[in-house]
Amino acid sequence: MAKKVTGPEIERLIQLLARVPGLGPRSARRAALHMIKKKEQLLGPLAAAMSEANDRVGLCSTCGNADTSDPCTICSDPTRDQSVIIVVEDVSDLWALERAAAMNAAYHVLGGTLSPLDGVGPEDLAISQLVDRVSAGGVRELLIAVNATVEGQTTAHYIIDQLGDFDVRITRLAHGVPVGGELDYLDEGTLAAAIRSRTSF
Amino acid sequence: MAKKVTGPEIERLIQLLARVPGLGPRSARRAALHMIKKKEQLLGPLAAAMSEANDRVGLCSTCGNADTSDPCTICSDPTRDQSVIIVVEDVSDLWALERAAAMNAAYHVLGGTLSPLDGVGPEDLAISQLVDRVSAGGVRELLIAVNATVEGQTTAHYIIDQLGDFDVRITRLAHGVPVGGELDYLDEGTLAAAIRSRTSF
Ligand SMILES: [Zn+2]
Ligand SMILES: [Zn+2]
Repeated sequence: MAKKVTGPEIERLIQLLARVPGLGPRSARRAALHMIKKKEQLLGPLAAAMSEANDRVGLCSTCGNADTSDPCTICSDPTRDQSVIIVVEDVSDLWALERAAAMNAAYHVLGGTLSPLDGVGPEDLAISQLVDRVSAGGVRELLIAVNATVEGQTTAHYIIDQLGDFDVRITRLAHGVPVGGELDYLDEGTLAAAIRSRTSF
Repeated sequence: MAKKVTGPEIERLIQLLARVPGLGPRSARRAALHMIKKKEQLLGPLAAAMSEANDRVGLCSTCGNADTSDPCTICSDPTRDQSVIIVVEDVSDLWALERAAAMNAAYHVLGGTLSPLDGVGPEDLAISQLVDRVSAGGVRELLIAVNATVEGQTTAHYIIDQLGDFDVRITRLAHGVPVGGELDYLDEGTLAAAIRSRTSF
């Protein structure tokens, strides 16, 4: 603002909110003001929820899911079929597939895709951890649910090469996923259909 | 989500974020995940900023601005002309007018507009407090910068009636403000022009 109209605390709140995906500088101002007016219903509870998430949320050391417990809710769920692992690029993809509710399996979050031009190599992704999980035994299927992009498919083929010696079924999502599309933006129905029609590599 | 994939803390954070203007349920999930990944740069600082705003921000007892001090930064600024009061509906309008940087005056936030159908009467707005400020003396101009809506104009005329006995110049924004438009959505240039061309009631 051109001149000081309020204390630095609100300015700082607005600046930080402007860095949240989905909010820009103008939306951040409106959001901050709305929160300040709804202190008891929104600002206070949100501050507490963020503080608790900041203190307690981390990534699962087994699968990479974001959770407050390690192993995470999914990895420690005895009603899930832990012999099927769905390999995804990002936690957001895990959440998107769970919303489709088409499989009751475990997950493995890679943390990205191979991208030599950006300097992202196999050691930057959780690929060796995936090989370790498979070599520990008990895994019968690996559904490689990476995005239908060049980087995603390159990463899928690299993983398949690494797992050539293991007796595990490797599958991919059916071509219901639009080419070049990102999982996180798809509707639940499309994701569910793509999981049901998954094919072998 | 169909099945538990993470602890209740993240679900709660997502639910609260979904109530922030500008974010919906899907954006809230993305925002929460982004914050969790950027704990040190974003989630931690934002939790702290919100907590501090929650503890320290209130409405100025003189003008109604949102600030950590009372009287607020504007009311206690000796370089502002406190003899000119800009009357606005909402704190967001105050901030929007300050961004236009066309006047160096004080403010008075009404907290809404008269709306008999919604049960909003004069006692629900900070109108008597405005009359008190004027009757205390030292005010030479009141710029009534309410929205160019029916409710805004009704409120303006009600205020003018209440101030009939005082020797104070009452002005309004020039017709640069689109009819039916809301101040908070206008660009700085339009707002600055509307302030410069303000006319007498
Ligand atoms: Zn896990
Ligand atoms: Zn004030």
